[in-house]
Amino acid sequence: MKDIILSCTQCKKEFSPQRIHPRCSACNEPLEVTYPRLEKAEIQFRGTLLERYRDFLPFEQIHRKISLGEGNTPLLKSNIVAAEIGIQSLHFKNESQNPTWSFKDRGTALGLEHALSLGFSRIGTVSTGNMATSVAAYGARAGLETYVLVPHNLPSEKIAPIAVYNPHLIMVDGDYGDLYYRSLEIGEELGLYFINSDVPFRVEGSKTIAFEICEQLDFSVPDYVAVPVSAGGNIRGIAKGFEEFHRVGLIDRMPGMIAAQASGCSPVVNAYQAGKETIERIRNPGTIAHAIENPFPPSGNQTLRMLRANEGIAVKVSDEEILAAQELMARDGIFGQPAAAVPLAAVKMLLDRSYLQPTDSVVCIVTGSGLKYSAALENKSFDIKTTDLERLTEAFKR
Amino acid sequence: MKDIILSCTQCKKEFSPQRIHPRCSACNEPLEVTYPRLEKAEIQFRGTLLERYRDFLPFEQIHRKISLGEGNTPLLKSNIVAAEIGIQSLHFKNESQNPTWSFKDRGTALGLEHALSLGFSRIGTVSTGNMATSVAAYGARAGLETYVLVPHNLPSEKIAPIAVYNPHLIMVDGDYGDLYYRSLEIGEELGLYFINSDVPFRVEGSKTIAFEICEQLDFSVPDYVAVPVSAGGNIRGIAKGFEEFHRVGLIDRMPGMIAAQASGCSPVVNAYQAGKETIERIRNPGTIAHAIENPFPPSGNQTLRMLRANEGIAVKVSDEEILAAQELMARDGIFGQPAAAVPLAAVKMLLDRSYLQPTDSVVCIVTGSGLKYSAALENKSFDIKTTDLERLTEAFKR
Repeated sequence: MKDIILSCTQCKKEFSPQRIHPRCSACNEPLEVTYPRLEKAEIQFRGTLLERYRDFLPFEQIHRKISLGEGNTPLLKSNIVAAEIGIQSLHFKNESQNPTWSFKDRGTALGLEHALSLGFSRIGTVSTGNMATSVAAYGARAGLETYVLVPHNLPSEKIAPIAVYNPHLIMVDGDYGDLYYRSLEIGEELGLYFINSDVPFRVEGSKTIAFEICEQLDFSVPDYVAVPVSAGGNIRGIAKGFEEFHRVGLIDRMPGMIAAQASGCSPVVNAYQAGKETIERIRNPGTIAHAIENPFPPSGNQTLRMLRANEGIAVKVSDEEILAAQELMARDGIFGQPAAAVPLAAVKMLLDRSYLQPTDSVVCIVTGSGLKYSAALENKSFDIKTTDLERLTEAFKR
Repeated sequence: MKDIILSCTQCKKEFSPQRIHPRCSACNEPLEVTYPRLEKAEIQFRGTLLERYRDFLPFEQIHRKISLGEGNTPLLKSNIVAAEIGIQSLHFKNESQNPTWSFKDRGTALGLEHALSLGFSRIGTVSTGNMATSVAAYGARAGLETYVLVPHNLPSEKIAPIAVYNPHLIMVDGDYGDLYYRSLEIGEELGLYFINSDVPFRVEGSKTIAFEICEQLDFSVPDYVAVPVSAGGNIRGIAKGFEEFHRVGLIDRMPGMIAAQASGCSPVVNAYQAGKETIERIRNPGTIAHAIENPFPPSGNQTLRMLRANEGIAVKVSDEEILAAQELMARDGIFGQPAAAVPLAAVKMLLDRSYLQPTDSVVCIVTGSGLKYSAALENKSFDIKTTDLERLTEAFKR
């Protein structure tokens, strides 16, 4: 590994980059990777995601063969939706084109690289969906023993896309938040690297979303970047990516960060709007956007600190607004899972209430594929005609 | 459009590139795009798929804003599977990372460009899945009226991922093969461009799979490329792509083409193995690989001609072998739909029977995402442990 430091996002206490526990031993806040020597960093124009941004990432040596072709996803300029909601410049960063069809693959590739650099042969994760699939896939490819812990009530349709990669799949009865902390203990006990939602090296993976956006916009910076917030690791990483490109002079300013949550589970938005410094656990979370239904996000407090420093926006949207945004986004040809439509729902609401202006430029992060959870559309009545071959021509008449 | 010709793949009769009917008026065989001036063609290193290969494609003007970021998919060297089945060089071309998670997006982008160049404002397709989704997405993005014809018995889980893009969705009762031909008549009657499975411009899209493979292998050519065969358009396009790169001198030989079908619906393999020049309709098709369950492929005869000229291989595999290959491929971190696992099943069988050698190099085309049809894994009993938080550590003991 390079000459990097793990430091606490709150108290700044420093740790060795060999550490696998993602939280500060003093204040229990999440750690992050800091780079004493970033100044001479350059982007490479060929190679895998980790190779292209190697100057900005922690590793000297990269295990190319574990890559599944993560990252390098399209940034699409909105045609239809931008006109519909009344904004001049709207882009979608389509993370559903990753190897397991969500943004998680970037962080998994980084976390796995860290695990390999430390000599681990066993990895794990605690997840209900996207991350479970991603870690199972990369663990299989790398030939590691992979443990995936899921809640005991995970619906069977979500099991197969994880189980197909043949991990050690364990369904756990008990509080899901407690399971996260228990997994960290087990990791240290058993010598097993848990690549959970906000481990510092996973956060480094999310940085590359920001890097790609900058390159795709020819290093002009959007006014805002809207991100769905669950554990908080993804928005932390994206903000960190812009900060590092700013630090080395590749961009000349920071975008405003928009943290978007579902009304049914919005601990970060609640705390930010109330001016609090710490999040409070949501007692009865419930939203159609299951992928971001985290009642007590481990990076919640750091997300608050980041938003304050950034003068960012935090906003929550209803399930109705989320489903409407999911359909609206499909008008531009992009089918995201409900969580992935939360940024667009937020942007639409902020425009309606004049917190955003039609002249602002915004990038929405589409975090995962609509195929992940097509049951979300189950109760939607689509307008479908039925006919036979003889009367087919008539079906084309309006 | 450029100075190109549509010519019949069988009788060589020539047609104007303005023609939207994909078949020869003399012999009813499929047409293809031919390029009188390909010699000075070069690859561009930036831009959308159509921009990068513009010298090899029919269009002078490209509507960049209709692109969804199709193509540019990873070519992954197999780690685990190659060792498992006993072959030194095995690659997977992972088409599940396209905008609607299948290879269809390449051909849709090309077909749509043709429709726009001819001034059409209405497009359509006949499909049961991947192509329906793809045409619905691109039609939405381009703001065109889009008609998607599906069989009346399409399961409801397959409807939502098409309907979300808000096309005119029509369920048609009647023979699915007849529906294909009826759609071509309706297209001409009503002035509506049907971007069906083997229209010449869709075949031009599949060419780009071959182009990317060549670039990704630094212009060395694999011994074999294995492709699942349904209508026949995709394998035609891939073979044509290698031929054109060969013609301009970018590669020095052709790969052998392996046409892979499911035993339950193998009209092309049956005819090829029997030495026949035309395919026969399969009366009672049935396979888990629904995406390639086409009982009377419109490009079946041309696929036979192509395979003969190429000295290719045609092989069929059972549903059991397909499902085994689907799980095997996931060991390398790739979850394909059953049809997408057919090439690997075929390669494994050909190795087992010594038609292929361990020293051969092979590329398998992974045509679409496993999330398209995760119900295929429904009856599989995965090895899952159940526990609670107190006893969690025990679950890690082997």
